[in-house]
Amino acid sequence: MSKMDLMLIPLIAGFVGVPIVAWLFWWLAKEGTGSLRMRELASYIREGAYTFLKREFKTMSYVIIPLGILLFVLLGWQIAIGFATGTVFSMLAILIGMNGAVRANVRTANAARTSPGRALVLAFRGGAIMGFSIVSLVLIGISSLYFVFRAGPTNPEAVHLLVGFGFGASLSALFAEVGGGIFTKAADIGADLAGKVEAGIPEDDPRNPAVIADLVGDNVGDCAGRGADLFESSADNLVCTMIIGLAFTGTYGWNAVLFPLLVRAIGKLATIIGVFSVRKWGKRGPLASLNIGLSSAAISNLILFYILSRWFMGDIRLFYCLSLGLLSVLIISLIVQYYTGITSAPVRKIAEASQTGASLNILTGLSYGLESAALPMLLIAAVMFSSYQILGGELLGIFGIAMATLGMTEMKGMIQSIDTFGPISDNAGGIAEMSGISREARESLSTLDAAGNVTKAITKGYGLTKCILSSVVILFAYIFVLCQYQGITLTSLSDIALYLNVANPVIIAALLIGATVPFLFSAFTLRATSKAASKMVDEVRRQFKEIPGLLEGKARPDYSRCVDISTKHSLKQMVPPILVGLIAPIIIGFTLGVWPLAAFLLGVTIVGGLLAMFMFNSGGAWDNAKKFIEAGHFGGKAGVAYPAAVMGDTVGDPLKDTAGPSLHILIKLVNILSITLLPLFLAYSIL
Amino acid sequence: MSKMDLMLIPLIAGFVGVPIVAWLFWWLAKEGTGSLRMRELASYIREGAYTFLKREFKTMSYVIIPLGILLFVLLGWQIAIGFATGTVFSMLAILIGMNGAVRANVRTANAARTSPGRALVLAFRGGAIMGFSIVSLVLIGISSLYFVFRAGPTNPEAVHLLVGFGFGASLSALFAEVGGGIFTKAADIGADLAGKVEAGIPEDDPRNPAVIADLVGDNVGDCAGRGADLFESSADNLVCTMIIGLAFTGTYGWNAVLFPLLVRAIGKLATIIGVFSVRKWGKRGPLASLNIGLSSAAISNLILFYILSRWFMGDIRLFYCLSLGLLSVLIISLIVQYYTGITSAPVRKIAEASQTGASLNILTGLSYGLESAALPMLLIAAVMFSSYQILGGELLGIFGIAMATLGMTEMKGMIQSIDTFGPISDNAGGIAEMSGISREARESLSTLDAAGNVTKAITKGYGLTKCILSSVVILFAYIFVLCQYQGITLTSLSDIALYLNVANPVIIAALLIGATVPFLFSAFTLRATSKAASKMVDEVRRQFKEIPGLLEGKARPDYSRCVDISTKHSLKQMVPPILVGLIAPIIIGFTLGVWPLAAFLLGVTIVGGLLAMFMFNSGGAWDNAKKFIEAGHFGGKAGVAYPAAVMGDTVGDPLKDTAGPSLHILIKLVNILSITLLPLFLAYSIL
Repeated sequence: MSKMDLMLIPLIAGFVGVPIVAWLFWWLAKEGTGSLRMRELASYIREGAYTFLKREFKTMSYVIIPLGILLFVLLGWQIAIGFATGTVFSMLAILIGMNGAVRANVRTANAARTSPGRALVLAFRGGAIMGFSIVSLVLIGISSLYFVFRAGPTNPEAVHLLVGFGFGASLSALFAEVGGGIFTKAADIGADLAGKVEAGIPEDDPRNPAVIADLVGDNVGDCAGRGADLFESSADNLVCTMIIGLAFTGTYGWNAVLFPLLVRAIGKLATIIGVFSVRKWGKRGPLASLNIGLSSAAISNLILFYILSRWFMGDIRLFYCLSLGLLSVLIISLIVQYYTGITSAPVRKIAEASQTGASLNILTGLSYGLESAALPMLLIAAVMFSSYQILGGELLGIFGIAMATLGMTEMKGMIQSIDTFGPISDNAGGIAEMSGISREARESLSTLDAAGNVTKAITKGYGLTKCILSSVVILFAYIFVLCQYQGITLTSLSDIALYLNVANPVIIAALLIGATVPFLFSAFTLRATSKAASKMVDEVRRQFKEIPGLLEGKARPDYSRCVDISTKHSLKQMVPPILVGLIAPIIIGFTLGVWPLAAFLLGVTIVGGLLAMFMFNSGGAWDNAKKFIEAGHFGGKAGVAYPAAVMGDTVGDPLKDTAGPSLHILIKLVNILSITLLPLFLAYSIL
Repeated sequence: MSKMDLMLIPLIAGFVGVPIVAWLFWWLAKEGTGSLRMRELASYIREGAYTFLKREFKTMSYVIIPLGILLFVLLGWQIAIGFATGTVFSMLAILIGMNGAVRANVRTANAARTSPGRALVLAFRGGAIMGFSIVSLVLIGISSLYFVFRAGPTNPEAVHLLVGFGFGASLSALFAEVGGGIFTKAADIGADLAGKVEAGIPEDDPRNPAVIADLVGDNVGDCAGRGADLFESSADNLVCTMIIGLAFTGTYGWNAVLFPLLVRAIGKLATIIGVFSVRKWGKRGPLASLNIGLSSAAISNLILFYILSRWFMGDIRLFYCLSLGLLSVLIISLIVQYYTGITSAPVRKIAEASQTGASLNILTGLSYGLESAALPMLLIAAVMFSSYQILGGELLGIFGIAMATLGMTEMKGMIQSIDTFGPISDNAGGIAEMSGISREARESLSTLDAAGNVTKAITKGYGLTKCILSSVVILFAYIFVLCQYQGITLTSLSDIALYLNVANPVIIAALLIGATVPFLFSAFTLRATSKAASKMVDEVRRQFKEIPGLLEGKARPDYSRCVDISTKHSLKQMVPPILVGLIAPIIIGFTLGVWPLAAFLLGVTIVGGLLAMFMFNSGGAWDNAKKFIEAGHFGGKAGVAYPAAVMGDTVGDPLKDTAGPSLHILIKLVNILSITLLPLFLAYSIL
């Protein structure tokens, strides 16, 4: 096949997703939606989610449209088109995915009434809609742009123009994650503090005015936010691996550029195999079903890696790098499970410390959270070091690192499916609770929910490893593009040592400044969440006070008012952190210059990665310490430890679901933004 | 004067401290020690503090003696002697300083009964004993070793051997700070949680069994711990500035090496002027008196900087660098006061958030704490960048950075005096409260205590800026020594670019690993404190339950049992974090090698600095938010906000007083340890 024909494979693979998604929707539509009350609740959630998304897209447009015009004027039509496609495709993916999720939730709740196993398949396939949308739209977007820009061996620079797509996807993801994250945690904390702690009513109780907002939050935060996150990281990784491939056409020919796309395209097959091997659960519970899906996807991927590395690239070492990346995903998920799993030692210790009050619960959680950042980071260093050495170190070693991240990213479709499975089960549980369906159905849904907590931990472990390694790859793409602009023929890493000398105080200063950005950004996202949450607490308290008979269950709370408050405040509060992310690299690029900017990016990546891990794991551990006590340990729900554990959980919530995930996106955004704006920095640097 | 004669100046300046310290003790001894009850309480505190110190020194000896022998065998007698002198002098300085503090506390309390102004002078001069001990012993130690090693223009390498002194001082400081920090916060949290929160008795109430342990903690943690910290940073900074000076004898002759010592020696004059210009306070309160002391020291220093730079070195640009360092101390203390001052916006916001419960208090505090790390870091980057540029960038620029840190360190004597003033006033307040002396005396002591909180904030702001910049200087000393070992004649920073290339994945991996160390270390120190605190909570609960009539004030609690628990657990728990600090750089040195080790050190420095700032400022802000509510805002002590604020304070306590300060020392320890062990890494590297 000629190179042009080969490029049709990813495009076709992308379009194969369309009938699959359509089939999944059709399959879902056939399922029953339960009682009138269930349908009513589901429609509240659906409406709330759509309203939020509509208003969020509107807010985004105020930033994205002018920015697109600016890019067009300053950097040409290709970057602008890429940027537009990236944002629109990202929004489209999460819109389709969320549509699937808000349809699947009520159907999952209904299925649980008759067959718990069927409920699992429903929730999972609902999640797979998001998974396939992302995988497909990334492939369609990037391969179409490849054609539109007429990229190819005769026009290699055109590959650089693909960064516009990555930039668009990243910016869109940052909005989705920060906005959705604030929304969901404001509602969650508001519902917990004012409802559970103060009024003493159980979780998901229909009397709680913030309960619908909380369920909407699962969809717009956990589902849409995380979807946008995976869309962007998938897009950025693909674009940057291709850019890095450009530097190795001497070794592998044009295949170096096509390889990442082909791996993705053919790897989609693995996702299809994985998704459809998840079946009703038998004796071994829902996690076993999901594990079958994950393992079949992993094995299929390994086989495909082998075939492509061996025969397409003629270099079996690429297979080792790809596999190393894929396997590290498994290891990291074990580490995360050790720190956050409900029966793990750290979680037990946190639960135990709760007996002496909330302070020691918080301190113990902080302590394990800080500790938990170490092992994954060491693993990342090891994967980086090994994949670099597998290809012999030096310049080609960088391609090895890129391959490792490509291997990691391959599991994306499956991971996204099981991740979206989480909020769908959570929603289904909420609907079941509020509509008062049978006890058995609720119990089987809570089994699903517990499985969802484990899958969320896996996704986070996966996300964080991939994010940091991917950012290193994006950083190298930045360096490679920079060399090209500056006319440096890169034959060895030493060629650029002069510009990136750690002993140069300017480089140290840039690293230092980069390292502060994640702190500032997290400060803003946490503050935003606290502010929005305190508005929610006020509103819930107000409704309890002003609506007569509400606590006795005689009157209905005003759910929509709470949804409104979360929407309004999250959209207002999401702007400052996003501005920090956009402006900081631009200032460094124009002042300290383009080489120190690389050090700045590394500073953001390393510190952002550590902080995010700390936030994920401490949040997860606090959450499960609470669940551990709820399960009857250390005095159970009635004991002194329980309120302390609830406190810890509400502190951890915005860490793990707002600030942490947003940091991930920030890291990639600053990196890809720097590549996109590089020509401007070079043209208008002031120092 | 010949070079050898010049060297007598620092030695003499060092010994000048002896009569001053002796005079201060004599002056203190003349003061009255109050009632029998006061003397009794003071003796409990004194005994507790000495017992702890004795047992701590014993625990330290298990590590320090074998390590000294190892250094002797592997690296020669000079390093071993330096190491021994560094540890012994450090212990001696804190022993003398703490002796002054435990004498001054009861006298301050007594003086407050007749003259509040006199109480201030007493507390401050008690603190000055620590200040002068440190300044003098550092000078005596380093200049004696200079003579013993026969360092000089004909034997320049001997200057490198001084690192042994720095290493000894650092290791001793790490023990003192980690051990003392765990002790004080276990007692403080234990007293607060079990006494204040659960039993509802006020602060410093004699019925609280942990109250004496808490007061002992002020001495062994805040006083001895911080003293050891300043001793080490002063020693490390001096040694490393001299090592860096070695590289510039081409420009400045041997004066480049002598200059740092002379600046210190003559700068001691400024400390004397500063200390003795602190007088009884008049209408404008105690802070005005302390400010007079600080400003006279600062102005005297600036004059001395000018004279020495102009006439001794013949380069007025050094004066700019030194002054820049000194002035940055003032700016940073303003930033810290903005984030932690009792009337500042962040503190008010945290207090306000407490109204919706402890979760939002914690989240808001975390948020401002994270934010507060940004500005100081940017200031550090700016000072580094400017002092580098003042000397024309390139290699000589590094000398400029060293000068800036030297300028900062000059204020040390004064800063340590006002810092130790804090725990002395705190102790005096405790003694006054417990012995029930007059209301007016207690009020004037609480004014002193409030002033002590501000001075603590200044010290911390000072400490953190100096720590990070100093570590950069130590890192350069490491690089310079390394070049010498490897036979690299350093004429430009580019000469080493190849080895320190940020684009090299091995360097990135080393940075990454270094960045995880502060997370792991803080995790361990926090965990240690939580564990020790929970033992204390159990003990206080036990005494309340088992000693009849205790809560009614009819029986005496068993104070010494609580002191014992703090002592035992802090000494047991301090080992794991210290091992992390010692082992991590050794592993990297032997495996990844000596150049990546430089990147590792930078990773530790940057991330450690950020984390420490976050911890200091969030802890300080939580503390003052509680005080703000105690002052009657947001419902005061009786309102719903108060318990939430107390919670926040107990979470912040170990952050700001254990983990944060310990991190400071860790950062310097890993750097100085790496210089000390460099010959071993070169000889036995395994990769």
